[in-house]
Amino acid sequence: MTSREGERESKMGRDRIEKMSAEVVDSNPYSRLMALQRMGIVSEYEQIRQKSVAVVGVGGVGSVTADMLTRCGIGKLLLFDYDKVELANMNRLFFTPDQAGLSKVEAAANTLNFINPDVAIETNNYNITTVDNFDKFLGAIQTGGVKQGTPVDLVLSCVDNFEARMAINTACNELSLHWFESGVSENAVSGHIQFIRPGETACFACAPPLVVAENIDEKTLKREGVCAASLPTTMGIVAGMLVQNTLKYLLHFGTVSDYLGYNAMIDFFPQMSLKPNPTCDDSFCVKRQQEYLAKPACEKEVQNSAESDTEAVLHEDNLYGIELVAEDDGAPVKGAQPSNSTNKLTEGLKLAYEGPVSVEDTPTAHQSTEDEVSLDQLMAQMSSM
Amino acid sequence: MTSREGERESKMGRDRIEKMSAEVVDSNPYSRLMALQRMGIVSEYEQIRQKSVAVVGVGGVGSVTADMLTRCGIGKLLLFDYDKVELANMNRLFFTPDQAGLSKVEAAANTLNFINPDVAIETNNYNITTVDNFDKFLGAIQTGGVKQGTPVDLVLSCVDNFEARMAINTACNELSLHWFESGVSENAVSGHIQFIRPGETACFACAPPLVVAENIDEKTLKREGVCAASLPTTMGIVAGMLVQNTLKYLLHFGTVSDYLGYNAMIDFFPQMSLKPNPTCDDSFCVKRQQEYLAKPACEKEVQNSAESDTEAVLHEDNLYGIELVAEDDGAPVKGAQPSNSTNKLTEGLKLAYEGPVSVEDTPTAHQSTEDEVSLDQLMAQMSSM
Repeated sequence: MTSREGERESKMGRDRIEKMSAEVVDSNPYSRLMALQRMGIVSEYEQIRQKSVAVVGVGGVGSVTADMLTRCGIGKLLLFDYDKVELANMNRLFFTPDQAGLSKVEAAANTLNFINPDVAIETNNYNITTVDNFDKFLGAIQTGGVKQGTPVDLVLSCVDNFEARMAINTACNELSLHWFESGVSENAVSGHIQFIRPGETACFACAPPLVVAENIDEKTLKREGVCAASLPTTMGIVAGMLVQNTLKYLLHFGTVSDYLGYNAMIDFFPQMSLKPNPTCDDSFCVKRQQEYLAKPACEKEVQNSAESDTEAVLHEDNLYGIELVAEDDGAPVKGAQPSNSTNKLTEGLKLAYEGPVSVEDTPTAHQSTEDEVSLDQLMAQMSSM
Repeated sequence: MTSREGERESKMGRDRIEKMSAEVVDSNPYSRLMALQRMGIVSEYEQIRQKSVAVVGVGGVGSVTADMLTRCGIGKLLLFDYDKVELANMNRLFFTPDQAGLSKVEAAANTLNFINPDVAIETNNYNITTVDNFDKFLGAIQTGGVKQGTPVDLVLSCVDNFEARMAINTACNELSLHWFESGVSENAVSGHIQFIRPGETACFACAPPLVVAENIDEKTLKREGVCAASLPTTMGIVAGMLVQNTLKYLLHFGTVSDYLGYNAMIDFFPQMSLKPNPTCDDSFCVKRQQEYLAKPACEKEVQNSAESDTEAVLHEDNLYGIELVAEDDGAPVKGAQPSNSTNKLTEGLKLAYEGPVSVEDTPTAHQSTEDEVSLDQLMAQMSSM
């Protein structure tokens, strides 16, 4: 902790609050949240203090995610990252120039503790993708609940690479933990969140992206003089979608979206649902699917009321139960990759699968936008296996 | 300026940067923004330093809006508010507990200057709705451009009451300035932005909300022990939508939305366009309409490429050219007001118009969600005048 942060806590912070109050006074940081009860949105807001959430990746999306959850008064946050704050991160919300050089988890924990001392913050400063650290990560989320020894209530993936997403997926399949995946495109003008419930929806290994960077992380790219673009707007919106759906899930209001995309160029927000792949490579995913199928119908949680309403199936050969609910707006996105870009891979990229790619041109298929490319191609590729 | 903020600037801040660089080094706060050029999204990012934006209202939406624009390196920001920071604001992003008691514009300016000293920040600590202050406000936005004496490039309304929105509307009609209106519902689970171009789209007086609070601002409500609910998620998303469309407008990329709504309960984002009312009460609005009609077609800016694509008109009696583009998803929102709520007004509310209300039940009208109630009712009411 820096001396300034120490000063902040000792001199300027507010005292802890034992119980959330709905009293409408200027000094009550929870009055506007407790008002959700009077408005008929949430039945018992203070349940949020019994919830623990893991935020993996504390960058442009993860830091704002942690900030929002902290201001909402979440019981406990587990932060995972191994990167340092840099001035090059200042084009996104949350971190400040004085924090350059500090580890992201420590810098974030200092700010979050200062904003809301009622939230328990646990920092984990390591890369979850190495063998030893993966076990630490697994143990941390398995026992990181508000009640000691219980698992966290939800894992939020805010990482920027394929390996870390696969590590989270493996851990959550093994522990049967619900999690949200999130992402923002390299050109900064699209993003998405995806709610993954092992056995019930597609996991990240059931339907991974077809093209992934091969052993290239952001640091490598930087050395070559190239970096991804990013915007505080897109990352703030994706964090907002992620935390809003987290609140709906934890506090039982509204409909939790299975997948929500965002295309900033035309303000388009596609939704879809992905059923799990019965032949998924992840054995725990297959096991969770069998457990889910064996459950009596009454025990299956209705996570998303939209599921029962879904009627339209866009593809006739829908072997894998992939459902797509999207507006019929296919304006090509300036700067988006052409849909056949997987045929001409840039150096450092590889196909996640090596099976032959033969994309069917179904007459009903609409013009692909960036978010939909991988889905169409994925289905064609799965069919050809 | 408090001593801590002073210390921040002298000890911890970064130096000013004369020219934005695309160099990919950790110490460059603009590398990720300049990368938008290489990605083919923006042709000349640094033009943003020639732009000036007024942010009116520095609360839950306005503070995050100012934060995003500052991190994007906007040339100049004019902040307007007359409220103080309170602990009760800590459930939204941006302000910190140590700022409680400071004026919102000063607290915001201190933080923003520290985050990015390249942005010129002008604070205006007064209520724009009084007669004298309205003239000050008018003068400030008329001469507040980056080049001394020129008007600002855009006005962003982030206020929380009808009177302030009408004041901004009056000023922007008179000065023929483009502006965005924004808002978040009292139950915290919906919001919207609306792009208003005098003479070209409906102004706020062409189609005001039917029900407005009568001389009741947030302070009055608080005294009665009642406050609106708010969430950092909804406000962050609305600020993100607002600034994203601001960037698209200022830097000429993508399609700027005329109206973008957000319903958090079902992740629904309706869009629509509103044409101006030829008999609008605001004489400057009518004058701007005449000027716009007199323009040769080639001079009319194509602000929104979607406009030319719009075909569907949902209402047959479309006297006022109101176009609604929305998904066919009418799930009733828990906690939303019933659609006939205007017939039973709570104390302190009044109808904005006194004409008879007779809502037509057209067979093609879909179930109203909160955002659409006022539009359907407005059309019916206009027809009956």
